[in-house]
Amino acid sequence: MIPAPYLLYLGHSDDPLGIKTSRGLAHFVPASCVGEFRHDDCPLTVGMPRMTLAEGKAAGAQTLVLGIANPGGSMGASLVADALAAIRLGMHVAAGLHHRLRDEPELVRAAAEAGVRLFDVRDPPPSLPVGNGLPRAGRRLLTVGTDCSVGKMYAAIAIERGLRARGHAADFRATGQTGILIAGEGIAVDAVVADFISGAVEVLAPARHDDGWDVIEGQGSLFHPSFAGVSTGLLHGAQPHALVLCHEIDRPHLRGLPHARVPELAECIDANLRIARLTSPDARFVGVCLNTSRLPEGAAGRHCAEIAAQLGLPTTDPVRFGVAPIVEEIERCFASSTPITTVSA
Amino acid sequence: MIPAPYLLYLGHSDDPLGIKTSRGLAHFVPASCVGEFRHDDCPLTVGMPRMTLAEGKAAGAQTLVLGIANPGGSMGASLVADALAAIRLGMHVAAGLHHRLRDEPELVRAAAEAGVRLFDVRDPPPSLPVGNGLPRAGRRLLTVGTDCSVGKMYAAIAIERGLRARGHAADFRATGQTGILIAGEGIAVDAVVADFISGAVEVLAPARHDDGWDVIEGQGSLFHPSFAGVSTGLLHGAQPHALVLCHEIDRPHLRGLPHARVPELAECIDANLRIARLTSPDARFVGVCLNTSRLPEGAAGRHCAEIAAQLGLPTTDPVRFGVAPIVEEIERCFASSTPITTVSA
Repeated sequence: MIPAPYLLYLGHSDDPLGIKTSRGLAHFVPASCVGEFRHDDCPLTVGMPRMTLAEGKAAGAQTLVLGIANPGGSMGASLVADALAAIRLGMHVAAGLHHRLRDEPELVRAAAEAGVRLFDVRDPPPSLPVGNGLPRAGRRLLTVGTDCSVGKMYAAIAIERGLRARGHAADFRATGQTGILIAGEGIAVDAVVADFISGAVEVLAPARHDDGWDVIEGQGSLFHPSFAGVSTGLLHGAQPHALVLCHEIDRPHLRGLPHARVPELAECIDANLRIARLTSPDARFVGVCLNTSRLPEGAAGRHCAEIAAQLGLPTTDPVRFGVAPIVEEIERCFASSTPITTVSA
Repeated sequence: MIPAPYLLYLGHSDDPLGIKTSRGLAHFVPASCVGEFRHDDCPLTVGMPRMTLAEGKAAGAQTLVLGIANPGGSMGASLVADALAAIRLGMHVAAGLHHRLRDEPELVRAAAEAGVRLFDVRDPPPSLPVGNGLPRAGRRLLTVGTDCSVGKMYAAIAIERGLRARGHAADFRATGQTGILIAGEGIAVDAVVADFISGAVEVLAPARHDDGWDVIEGQGSLFHPSFAGVSTGLLHGAQPHALVLCHEIDRPHLRGLPHARVPELAECIDANLRIARLTSPDARFVGVCLNTSRLPEGAAGRHCAEIAAQLGLPTTDPVRFGVAPIVEEIERCFASSTPITTVSA
């Protein structure tokens, strides 16, 4: 386990989507965070007190979390320099980039000298099996998206909490760096060797016999030419009974690819069902989670209602309006998963 | 480069599909092979003289090629013991398993002592980019399959040679261990980190401007629950103009998965076109390659004719009947790729 509390690193980032790990930690585990570190050219904040590295250390931070992400997951010179400074102040460093902390000799040396540790949270577990696609017990929900960084992790955690609040057994299964840092466990499926994508998800969400739900965080999009292979293997390994589509309103193009259009919601639902059916013939959608942050509140509500009418699915912005309609749809569609309160009545 | 000639390892294998790397080398580069090594319980042969390790060394073998494959790519104790014996006789060892030779300390130590090298051909190149899906110049053909191990590599090499024989520029692009050993280069796409599948293929088959073809070896199948993620990323990265479907007649179930049915050919064509269109909107099939080895010759020919009539595509068994009808279809569909002989007439 990574020692908390954390100092959240924003660095020089000017990409709101690029700081989603820091933002996710600030949102879901604020009690484990002391503040945020950013350079003067960083116009972003996750709403935590801004601190220098030394101030963070003095405030009790045990670990600097390099909570930023970029396509390809590389690590620039400035980021390495900041990590080095944190190490010299006696902080552990955690990162979830493809480029590993342990592959930076300077950081390894400094960490050994300072007696602190480097955590590469994207390291997959050793000896993963290849997937087998055999039907397994338990209920699984997977969040899928029209694009990367549209709120699939947020939706999954909100649905896990919503199911629990209604008395269901439910566990969030993290598949990305942010989710793993929040949950304290998980497998970064985009970091496993390609042959083992579906197998990794079969390990992450194994058979369960308590009538409860594994709520699995999706990755990428079937429509994203960089990452659709990951999304496909994840869908097959998840063997989901229920799917939730996540989408950001008015995104102009796919993340990182100005030439690539964002798919229509109905098109994305259709494609996910086609692919899902290979290992989960009865997979169905139980809701849509919209990121409406570009709209004022009234317009956001109207937009959700329009999409719900178009698609015939409960539609919400989980940040603004919660996920109650989706949890109710899950209860309606999967009758044996009645709330414990009802069962014991 | 891996020093030839090779001694081909079959070990204890009793799975005809499991020795496809040894068989591929014996078939495509026989002049680089001195013989085959197998234990008494191995009922298989690749048609090379059977030799002990010492006899192989005496016959001039420079490298023992562990030309076997199994789902998951693990390395058993017996295989390690045989590799160790070869090293002590002064042979290099090459393997393409997920489990790496360099991760076996005993082999590493023995190789250092004997002054020989270990070649892990499945190691991907460092610093692969993520895919971008941008249209790029050149013509690309990808072989895809109803299952693993149905002849996608064989078909790709045969089509490369067929195109060259008709005066076209063409290059086989290897994506698996056997192809890499035959071609002397390539990227094992199932061994790259999942986020980089499509990016690896964009690197493997970059833009070309000579009106020639990159003939890319497919992997897995969109219908195989273990590996469909790899097949999807490969399809997106390949950005193929032309596709060739590969299929083995009368295979009872998907490789390694007795519960999983082999898809219909038309279903497989439809699925590949849907997925391909994300990065190659005009992708089309130009032929079907059948492995008819379970049928007598007359029945094989009739079966090809039936499939051709059903699907409206040139259909052949490349081993038995060659790939001329597919090369002709490529010339017909892609008119600017006229043979050099015609251009210079």
